[in-house]
Amino acid sequence: MTMTYDAFKAQGLSIDMTRGKPAAEQLDLSQALIDDVGRAGFLSRDGIDCRNYGHVLGLPEARELGAQLLGLPATQVVAAGNSSLELMHDALAFAMLHGTVQSGPWGRAGEVAFLCPVPGYDRHFAICEALGIRMIAVPMNDDGPDMERVESLVAADPAIKGIWCTPLYSNPTGAIYSRETVRRLAGMPAAAPDFRLLWDDAYRFHHLTDERYTTPDIVAACAEAGHHDRALVFASTSKVTFGSAGLALFASSPRNVDWWQRCVSVRTIGPDKLNQLRHVHYLRDRAGLERLMDRHRAILQPKFEVLDASLHALLGDVSDVSWTKPKGGYFVSLFTPDGMAKRTVELAAQAGVVLTPAGAAFPYRVDPRDRHLRIAPSCPNTVQIEQAAMAIALSLRRALDEGARQAR
Amino acid sequence: MTMTYDAFKAQGLSIDMTRGKPAAEQLDLSQALIDDVGRAGFLSRDGIDCRNYGHVLGLPEARELGAQLLGLPATQVVAAGNSSLELMHDALAFAMLHGTVQSGPWGRAGEVAFLCPVPGYDRHFAICEALGIRMIAVPMNDDGPDMERVESLVAADPAIKGIWCTPLYSNPTGAIYSRETVRRLAGMPAAAPDFRLLWDDAYRFHHLTDERYTTPDIVAACAEAGHHDRALVFASTSKVTFGSAGLALFASSPRNVDWWQRCVSVRTIGPDKLNQLRHVHYLRDRAGLERLMDRHRAILQPKFEVLDASLHALLGDVSDVSWTKPKGGYFVSLFTPDGMAKRTVELAAQAGVVLTPAGAAFPYRVDPRDRHLRIAPSCPNTVQIEQAAMAIALSLRRALDEGARQAR
Repeated sequence: MTMTYDAFKAQGLSIDMTRGKPAAEQLDLSQALIDDVGRAGFLSRDGIDCRNYGHVLGLPEARELGAQLLGLPATQVVAAGNSSLELMHDALAFAMLHGTVQSGPWGRAGEVAFLCPVPGYDRHFAICEALGIRMIAVPMNDDGPDMERVESLVAADPAIKGIWCTPLYSNPTGAIYSRETVRRLAGMPAAAPDFRLLWDDAYRFHHLTDERYTTPDIVAACAEAGHHDRALVFASTSKVTFGSAGLALFASSPRNVDWWQRCVSVRTIGPDKLNQLRHVHYLRDRAGLERLMDRHRAILQPKFEVLDASLHALLGDVSDVSWTKPKGGYFVSLFTPDGMAKRTVELAAQAGVVLTPAGAAFPYRVDPRDRHLRIAPSCPNTVQIEQAAMAIALSLRRALDEGARQAR
Repeated sequence: MTMTYDAFKAQGLSIDMTRGKPAAEQLDLSQALIDDVGRAGFLSRDGIDCRNYGHVLGLPEARELGAQLLGLPATQVVAAGNSSLELMHDALAFAMLHGTVQSGPWGRAGEVAFLCPVPGYDRHFAICEALGIRMIAVPMNDDGPDMERVESLVAADPAIKGIWCTPLYSNPTGAIYSRETVRRLAGMPAAAPDFRLLWDDAYRFHHLTDERYTTPDIVAACAEAGHHDRALVFASTSKVTFGSAGLALFASSPRNVDWWQRCVSVRTIGPDKLNQLRHVHYLRDRAGLERLMDRHRAILQPKFEVLDASLHALLGDVSDVSWTKPKGGYFVSLFTPDGMAKRTVELAAQAGVVLTPAGAAFPYRVDPRDRHLRIAPSCPNTVQIEQAAMAIALSLRRALDEGARQAR
């Protein structure tokens, strides 16, 4: 490497690699959703005035679109607001406050714990932390969480009420849950009768290769295993149309959808049906959404390739350094030698490249081996991604040098 | 009266008077909000890309519009989603789960109780019931809740954590809180240090007469009284623009806005900023909103007048029957002789006119004197309102006849 850390720093760059935000050119793909609003009008297929109150589970055709996207009956799909994170938060808040179809309020039942495959999604963990749900880390493998660990914990401890799952192109490692993992999650015995899979299908359509990977239908798998109410499925078009103004979906068993309706009817008279109608007019069906996702991929794939190639060129010779090459999703995980992640993030920030804080992908923000970095290449351009890779490489090398000096 | 109950029933009408929904012609007033979306674009005044994630407290200019509407600094105003009911629910859910700026989680502190002026808004009471908050009814007068009762209860019982208030054109009686009522609510000593006024300013701009009534700034009144964090203010444009796709607002003390941000940041990455931007472009400022509200009034006022005139003609001679003539808002309260409300609603339904269930305006749906009816004349047309008034009159007269027969 010809560039030095100090020379890089002297450039005075400012690059944000912290969050999995779509780039402006991705948002441009859905400009029709803004331009053609007048054409979508306000009357639904069945003559519902989408401007007025009502329809707490969503506009019928938005639920049907969601049903196509998730491969479930429309009666089991709820079309909601602009954020699936809201739905996940509320699902747990409702369980804490009101209980589930099998149990009273979790908040009154003593300790509640959740399994958190790591590295995982920081906002999942923030929900647990805020609600006072104890988080138990379990290792994430390439084909999903370590199922031996998961099964033994879940079978033994009735305080464990659920597990966070991002089944496809998991945030942040890109893991793809195998058929076997899904089968075991659906079928495993649980000490808690109201055990839940919080199934965040955030990247269901977010492919980065020619192969459109899929994971098995978790609601069906749970039903087949006799655990009808185990899976709560969440998805959204936040990274399909607009991060701010997408369409969020919740899907589950008929009993859980009834439970959701009971809880949510106290909170609202209904979601923004005009935005739902616009989405139905714009996306039309699953094929329409997949065509749009191909155009997202055309923008994103080169960014991931530049990042991978840069890391290869800059860090390929450093031992104990590895990174993921995800087949979809929004993130790359980079693993440094133990004890180097925090310092690398610190040095990169000083050199003008802001990364997700080290530890963010772990419960309570503690990466026990201090070795994981989450890199989000979607928003910067390819030049910035090359610069960010350079900053990461130079910062990591400097951190390693510091470590070696201290060890002498 | 020439028409009989049975003759009315034989017409086979079907009229819904249950909810305070805007009529289609009111929604038509804001057609520009649908047609001109392309023109609003996606960039905020400060260059924020409203399509993307972020800005959990709302778009700056939407907060500024809210500040104009509520007469508070923009830093104390949050611009949110499509429903102020959601914000009220979440404020109490957050207090139950996380506590307030003065206290830990209410849900862990033993019994929590709320004062509920009656008749009141059924959806307020549904939130309390769902959260297990005990409701204590207090009488509603023309100038607000019975303050002697409120003050003595709040001073004595630390379990009483708040009171529901709809200060202007109260749902459903049309009460207008007096300056003195507001002063006393802000200043009264409370046994609970974290006592809250849930200030639902739903009808702040919804005048039905030439006089635009106002109530004093409750946040300022509380601050002056040294109870800086007592008031949580809610409002929305659901009955200004669209019931389904309006702009909801939360306002409070700086400390409470920080508290809100902490709680809500766990739940969402941000509201729909595109809808906020559209609202800013369409309404522009308080004067723009007031011009629009004049047009709403032109549609609504004749409906309230027809209802009042019909009730006069049909029930003016019945003793112990009275009804409100609200100066704003969406509802008329009709008081029957004791014990007649439920039966009147039943008979009206059988005759094809669906009213809000008797008791709905009371905690736990129990009107102790069974005499209150809530009438919502906004959605039906004037012919339907005359018919509904006829149904109510005939049903009430029949109920009275039945009562008289039983008494013999």
